[in-house]
Amino acid sequence: MPNATDRVQAITETVNRYIELIATGSADDIVELYADDATVEDPVGGEVHIGRQAIRGFYAAVGDVQRECELVTLRVAGHEAAFQFRLTVTAGEHKMVIEPIDVMVFDGQGKVAAMKAYWSADDVRQL
Amino acid sequence: MPNATDRVQAITETVNRYIELIATGSADDIVELYADDATVEDPVGGEVHIGRQAIRGFYAAVGDVQRECELVTLRVAGHEAAFQFRLTVTAGEHKMVIEPIDVMVFDGQGKVAAMKAYWSADDVRQL
Repeated sequence: MPNATDRVQAITETVNRYIELIATGSADDIVELYADDATVEDPVGGEVHIGRQAIRGFYAAVGDVQRECELVTLRVAGHEAAFQFRLTVTAGEHKMVIEPIDVMVFDGQGKVAAMKAYWSADDVRQL
Repeated sequence: MPNATDRVQAITETVNRYIELIATGSADDIVELYADDATVEDPVGGEVHIGRQAIRGFYAAVGDVQRECELVTLRVAGHEAAFQFRLTVTAGEHKMVIEPIDVMVFDGQGKVAAMKAYWSADDVRQL
């Protein structure tokens, strides 16, 4: 990522790709966005998953529920991004919505070096 | 902050107080929310202000422009918070709006130990 404009664009594309993959991608697809030694803390205050194998396990555990995902707000600054997104999960007749705020730190290759997700059970709405 | 519910409530109150003080408070008022050795990086990628004296200087530099400030979204998780807010600044006939996403880390006494603000010039709207 040689200059600031390219960096902002690359980060923006990666965040949009992440949102797309949360809805429709596999754990293998998602983990491709991460650096080898990346960390994921989702939610913040919970377990920190370190490295691609642990991160793949975390996303695989989300399982086969039907998901829709939409980016609400994105702020890119320096080598980082903060974004709010809306995740709708449908399991049988039950539907729930949550809008976490995630923060990602990017490395020099544009891979996600660290992700932290800010949400709690209080933020989940049943539809 | 003895338990999780009290911690969430204390963090929520501090964020709301911060938003109120951004609009109507002095640098001295705002710095009271911070721990002695706190850090402020606003925007992310810019200078990191370390310690209360540097932080007071940062907020004092905002100056005497007329400000309105409103909390848009708040997510509390663990000992941290992420929140989006809307800041409207009026200088003479010029009015501009920006909606940063801030992240705060809180210490055991409920003081802000670290603040990072995610926004860039691209996010500023002229009204």
